[in-house]
Amino acid sequence: MEKVYQGKTKDVYKLDNGNFRLLFKDDVTGENGVFDPGANTVGLSIEGIGRENLKTSVYFFEILKKAGIKTHYVSADVEASAMEALPAKVFGKGLEIICRFKATGSFIRRYGNYIDEGAPLNAYVEVTCKDDGRGDPLITKEGLEALGIMTGEQFNSVVAETKEICAIIKDTLAEKGLDLYDIKLEFGYYNGEVILIDEIASGNMRVYKDGVIVDPIDLTKMILA
Amino acid sequence: MEKVYQGKTKDVYKLDNGNFRLLFKDDVTGENGVFDPGANTVGLSIEGIGRENLKTSVYFFEILKKAGIKTHYVSADVEASAMEALPAKVFGKGLEIICRFKATGSFIRRYGNYIDEGAPLNAYVEVTCKDDGRGDPLITKEGLEALGIMTGEQFNSVVAETKEICAIIKDTLAEKGLDLYDIKLEFGYYNGEVILIDEIASGNMRVYKDGVIVDPIDLTKMILA
Repeated sequence: MEKVYQGKTKDVYKLDNGNFRLLFKDDVTGENGVFDPGANTVGLSIEGIGRENLKTSVYFFEILKKAGIKTHYVSADVEASAMEALPAKVFGKGLEIICRFKATGSFIRRYGNYIDEGAPLNAYVEVTCKDDGRGDPLITKEGLEALGIMTGEQFNSVVAETKEICAIIKDTLAEKGLDLYDIKLEFGYYNGEVILIDEIASGNMRVYKDGVIVDPIDLTKMILA
Repeated sequence: MEKVYQGKTKDVYKLDNGNFRLLFKDDVTGENGVFDPGANTVGLSIEGIGRENLKTSVYFFEILKKAGIKTHYVSADVEASAMEALPAKVFGKGLEIICRFKATGSFIRRYGNYIDEGAPLNAYVEVTCKDDGRGDPLITKEGLEALGIMTGEQFNSVVAETKEICAIIKDTLAEKGLDLYDIKLEFGYYNGEVILIDEIASGNMRVYKDGVIVDPIDLTKMILA
């Protein structure tokens, strides 16, 4: 199989049927040997975490499918840590779509002059460019258009889908007594439509329980319990 | 007179008629004694530069007035380095509105993965929060609304006015053989309207002549010649 993309935590291959095969690796992002989903470098390996992230993703992709939301997810081979996905094109060199329900992280680092840590946000959506060297810079709708990364119409679709998807994920977590603060998604373009791609795993979200942040490894266990 | 605001390069007083009196100081931003309009700290004093910036501002405000554009400018007392202005309210804790005709500076630092230094931009407008401690973070239309800094309608007005104003400034400079790359404006809210406030001086813009950037002090001389 031809490797079409090598990521920090996943590799992507091209299947004979034209679809992609995503191989979930045991590498996780972090710094100095400490797992940190917000970090931009591979910090350590945790045996079996690739498979756990795949299982978590399948769990959410199946819920979204039942809700009638189109994603790139086709099927999964959990034993092989592999997911088959539609071969969607990423926008530009890749974007991260963040949906925030409570102000924390980079939102506070940017706008702490205006809002307190933990203050509510109404499914607030923002977009950053995947660019480790530049610290994943924020980009506006106008910026995406000016740089030819995405049309205004595509941006509106991404925002609307993000709000819908994240509300479902938030509700799913709430049923388990978990509080979603923010989550990072990726979208791609396939067959004339904007669809959710990548994974939906613990490392993509900040979740709290009884006011205390839940470690991604524990979170995976709680989601899959 | 009551001092209502102390800025890095200007102080603002309240006049008896309710208007503001802006006192242009000889302090300029920079670092290590070198004048740098993009810096966030007062780096040095240059005798008479406050008056020159006022003269430059009056020059542009008069041109805008003739073009029918409303600004906060009422009159100037150049000898006293003072300008009388309408008492507009700033948005939030102050915003900077940047209009770009060529990609340079922070735009390249953010999006250099997508665009080359000096590439053309079509009066591209973006907004940053005035917040030295946080490096003047970029903010989107949605962010301004979510934080209660500005309504979507006010944002649209600011963008439309910025494009109109900057096209006039660009043309004015072009008549002098000068090429405007980008410029930083401020807007306020007065009498139910969004109007241009602050100053329009050499330190607020990057201007090139024959492909070489023009030093702000030389630029002031060229504008006022």
